[in-house]
Amino acid sequence: MKIKDNFWSPIQNMIIDTVLPYQADILEDKVPGAEKSGAVNNFRIAAGEAEGEFYGMVFQDSDLAKWLEAAAYALTVKPNAALEKKADDIIALIDRAQEPDGYLNTFFTVKEPHHKWQNLLECHELYCSGHMIEAAVAYYNATGKDAFLNIMRRNADLICTRFGEGKTRGIPGHQEIELALFRLYQATGEKEYLKTAQYFLDERGKEPSYFEAELASRDWFHWAHGPENKFYAQNHAPVREQKEAVGHSVRAVYMYTAMAAIAAETGEEAMLNACRTLWSNIVNKRMYITGGVGSTHIGEAFTVDYDLPNDSIYAETCASIAMVFFARKMLEIEPIGEYADIMEKELYNGILSGMQLDGKRFFYVNPLEVVPGVSGQVPNYKHVLPQRPLWYGCACCPPNVARLITSLGQYAWSEKGNAVFSHLYMGGSVNLKAAGGVRIDCESNYPYGGDIQYKVSPEADTADFTLAIRIPAWCKGEWTLSVNGKPAQAETTNGYAYITRKWRSGDEVHLALAMKPIRMYANTNVRDDAGCVSITYGPLVYCFEACDNGASLAALRLPRSAEISDEKSDLFGGTVILKVEGLRVESCEALYSDIPPKVKPVNLKAVPYFAWGNREIGGMRVWMLE
Amino acid sequence: MKIKDNFWSPIQNMIIDTVLPYQADILEDKVPGAEKSGAVNNFRIAAGEAEGEFYGMVFQDSDLAKWLEAAAYALTVKPNAALEKKADDIIALIDRAQEPDGYLNTFFTVKEPHHKWQNLLECHELYCSGHMIEAAVAYYNATGKDAFLNIMRRNADLICTRFGEGKTRGIPGHQEIELALFRLYQATGEKEYLKTAQYFLDERGKEPSYFEAELASRDWFHWAHGPENKFYAQNHAPVREQKEAVGHSVRAVYMYTAMAAIAAETGEEAMLNACRTLWSNIVNKRMYITGGVGSTHIGEAFTVDYDLPNDSIYAETCASIAMVFFARKMLEIEPIGEYADIMEKELYNGILSGMQLDGKRFFYVNPLEVVPGVSGQVPNYKHVLPQRPLWYGCACCPPNVARLITSLGQYAWSEKGNAVFSHLYMGGSVNLKAAGGVRIDCESNYPYGGDIQYKVSPEADTADFTLAIRIPAWCKGEWTLSVNGKPAQAETTNGYAYITRKWRSGDEVHLALAMKPIRMYANTNVRDDAGCVSITYGPLVYCFEACDNGASLAALRLPRSAEISDEKSDLFGGTVILKVEGLRVESCEALYSDIPPKVKPVNLKAVPYFAWGNREIGGMRVWMLE
Repeated sequence: MKIKDNFWSPIQNMIIDTVLPYQADILEDKVPGAEKSGAVNNFRIAAGEAEGEFYGMVFQDSDLAKWLEAAAYALTVKPNAALEKKADDIIALIDRAQEPDGYLNTFFTVKEPHHKWQNLLECHELYCSGHMIEAAVAYYNATGKDAFLNIMRRNADLICTRFGEGKTRGIPGHQEIELALFRLYQATGEKEYLKTAQYFLDERGKEPSYFEAELASRDWFHWAHGPENKFYAQNHAPVREQKEAVGHSVRAVYMYTAMAAIAAETGEEAMLNACRTLWSNIVNKRMYITGGVGSTHIGEAFTVDYDLPNDSIYAETCASIAMVFFARKMLEIEPIGEYADIMEKELYNGILSGMQLDGKRFFYVNPLEVVPGVSGQVPNYKHVLPQRPLWYGCACCPPNVARLITSLGQYAWSEKGNAVFSHLYMGGSVNLKAAGGVRIDCESNYPYGGDIQYKVSPEADTADFTLAIRIPAWCKGEWTLSVNGKPAQAETTNGYAYITRKWRSGDEVHLALAMKPIRMYANTNVRDDAGCVSITYGPLVYCFEACDNGASLAALRLPRSAEISDEKSDLFGGTVILKVEGLRVESCEALYSDIPPKVKPVNLKAVPYFAWGNREIGGMRVWMLE
Repeated sequence: MKIKDNFWSPIQNMIIDTVLPYQADILEDKVPGAEKSGAVNNFRIAAGEAEGEFYGMVFQDSDLAKWLEAAAYALTVKPNAALEKKADDIIALIDRAQEPDGYLNTFFTVKEPHHKWQNLLECHELYCSGHMIEAAVAYYNATGKDAFLNIMRRNADLICTRFGEGKTRGIPGHQEIELALFRLYQATGEKEYLKTAQYFLDERGKEPSYFEAELASRDWFHWAHGPENKFYAQNHAPVREQKEAVGHSVRAVYMYTAMAAIAAETGEEAMLNACRTLWSNIVNKRMYITGGVGSTHIGEAFTVDYDLPNDSIYAETCASIAMVFFARKMLEIEPIGEYADIMEKELYNGILSGMQLDGKRFFYVNPLEVVPGVSGQVPNYKHVLPQRPLWYGCACCPPNVARLITSLGQYAWSEKGNAVFSHLYMGGSVNLKAAGGVRIDCESNYPYGGDIQYKVSPEADTADFTLAIRIPAWCKGEWTLSVNGKPAQAETTNGYAYITRKWRSGDEVHLALAMKPIRMYANTNVRDDAGCVSITYGPLVYCFEACDNGASLAALRLPRSAEISDEKSDLFGGTVILKVEGLRVESCEALYSDIPPKVKPVNLKAVPYFAWGNREIGGMRVWMLE
């Protein structure tokens, strides 16, 4: 889909016009004050065109890969000769940095040429290849140029020749190669890529553990991370037997995404059921209301059911992005509204919060509570920053946001047989294959309004197909759907309204969703939200910032009976803010007192969660005591 | 004071009859299933009477020292030939393990003889000497035997000869030697001990930092802990300039205790003010309602004002014990009821909770919230155990509890000039020096009742002195005081009621404190207690356990209007339990829901906090949502 949307287009344009050039400068170490990257220079050194040492993380190459992938998607949004030139130059550099056998990883080429493939547990070789492969496929799809694709086919061929049943044993420490090889298979039709992707999944969790065998066979370490905690990299059980989302959340969800891709391809029931089980475990037991996943910074990991602390949270931006990938793949398997609901939740909340509104600062961790003097400072809260930094030593998140937002059009629609599915209510136009070709134009005032207009333009005079439109769970049945002004003949199943008819050019479908502030409550097993309420508005989660509501947000109360009003505002370039008369508890002077605290009425103001931290540095809360 | 008290005597007797022999067995590695100690065997090896390697922590000697100190106090409670014999045997072993120059530390003697005094930052030599000195003074005071005292004077002389102004520079990594040398000074009158204690305090926090100079001068490490975090061991500023309680909480409060001891001795205003400031910071900003201190396991440390998480808490038993030491020293400086109130709070809550009721298991960490499946299991909560272990690799707390409880009589009373002060309402008898000698017998049903009877027996026919009785802040003025059945002529200042009169033998004083359940609220800056209430009853904090109230304690509510009743119970060998009609929030099925949760009435039961974890393993909460 080509997006032309009041909400998303400015963000896409900012990514393309500001963020990508800015990130390119970062990757070339041209931004003063930002953490050094070295990513491009590493390739120059590997190509023999610069002197110096490898710089950065063992997976530094992947930052450049994600940037290239984002650049590719950007070119599908609008032509950009300068960007394309820069990408082509970098691709040519990558070509020169690649070793003759197809090997591509600057850390090993420059720094550890004798230790290739020896430390898959720690060293992210397959991970970096995966990201480069994804970028190459995207660049090929966007431009038709196959130079990058050929580079990465050589690399993938090297991997597929080396690893597999009857070949060298191996699995990646950080999953990513699986879904990348799957994409390469889709782009090229080469079954070997699919087979190797499957191999990496099938081999995982097998006893005896590959990682332990690897550790026993090498005397070379990177961080000296051991394989003892098998949950960390989801190596604790064969993937089809995994029932709970555990360990490093990005590794986990990238893997689930690959599992879903392969289940969609093969239809294998055991794999599909594992995906459903893992999905359900995340969404029903281990996810923040913003879509954030990963409850602890220790291992950047999932913990246990209902353990969702708001202030020591991890909720990495990348993990939310991974949830979008996972959801999108699940939607290919079965059109169930929940997948799209969660995809939407991630996009409008836990992902967008990862980027400053001006596109120049990024969060890795997306907290639901920030406490001045504690967040970012006290042990155990040091990772929870109250302000987005310019860049990171481990900079996985910023280019991940860029590649997602630039490719957003791929998430809004899908097709299956003679049905077309509208998952996200983004304005724009999409060309679909149904009934010999149909274009659908969409207009909406989403997420600040609930009016979504579809205009159908089949290539033929009439077209027999089904338009399936997601009905979000959050609207609780308060919606209407009409075709050409009359109530639609629609069947609603699993979160989609199916309209099957002979469509004519100019037919208009109107979905009206009731948009209003909704009080949300957590399951009582979530002890950190006990006694609390949060407010949503359509797909948006709202939060209370100290700059609007005063310090000591924990002293505020949001009585159940208080009416919440929504109001258009110019804040953040145009948004809806929520207002409510709440209470402020007047504190005792002492640390503890037997005098029941008094309350006084105060006017409270909530802003969309994704926009928090764009004004003064201060406290923030999503869950408010009732 | 000789304690004869319904509440404390059984605990003292259990410590003496059960815990000390049990701990002796542990220290001699005779308890199957308990963590190995090696403490006694290390001395055998050092004395050349056993083969083998040093075992345990670098400060393993201190476990034995604290046991000996407890044994000394036990002998003041009641004669115990077997215990005395065992202590004498161990003391003789220590004598044989001591090096000719007075050096005494089995870790260095056995394992690192060439690294003595080189790594004060990490290696606890001065700390172990301090505990041994305290034990020796206690044993001398209890038995009159001076063998142990002489051993430790030799050791102290070695330390005082080595360290000081114009001698070798040094300060301990873990404070303890300061208060020990002060005690040795008090026992012997030797000013050199006082001077060296003062030196260690004065040298701390001076620039350039001793620890950095030490690190630069040695190539030998233990854990390779560096001195970078100057707050950890309170080396960030000269002690008189320290204003906030920071770093490792036991190190901190041991140091404050030594500062208070020296301020009491010298009357130095700058030192006294530093003590008052640090006391106030702890008590008014950084203390749990149970008296626990130390908000994070990272560095076992204080964090920042009002940061008091209940579930990831540290609140080490030793830190609460240290608070009793600190409070007792502050009381010597100035009779302010708050010091005794806090001393009492620690004793009846945060310290007693450190020991199972049968004396066989011990907590290091004393949480205010335990969550099944999370506490003790999830990263960041692994240190918060739901059940007291048998023993610890780092076993500082168990013998610390033993030495405190056996010496409890020393905390109940003090004298200053012609006034005698009753700080704690323990039954028993005390002989005081006032007016040429007076014995006071005390009877009370505390803490389950508020009736405290004092019977005065002067040696002379009449005696002119002031009896000052603490009036606890928690009773909020609901108390009466009578002498021989008539309202007392008392002046109440700073938490003490002063009765000055001519006392005759048989005079009786009766203090009646209103005992009832009291709802307590935290300062709104304590975000973890926001919306919550806790219940106290006299000096006791109460808690709600899952075995009484069902699982998912976060789903319970304690409405402000609900009446709380107190009831005598046979539970835990006789206690008061609290009953209240509360509510249970019925959870939504989903993780998040817009349906306001319904509540149903439930009968709730609270038990004294110190007794938690003595039945089934399960959840526990002190702070309940209102």
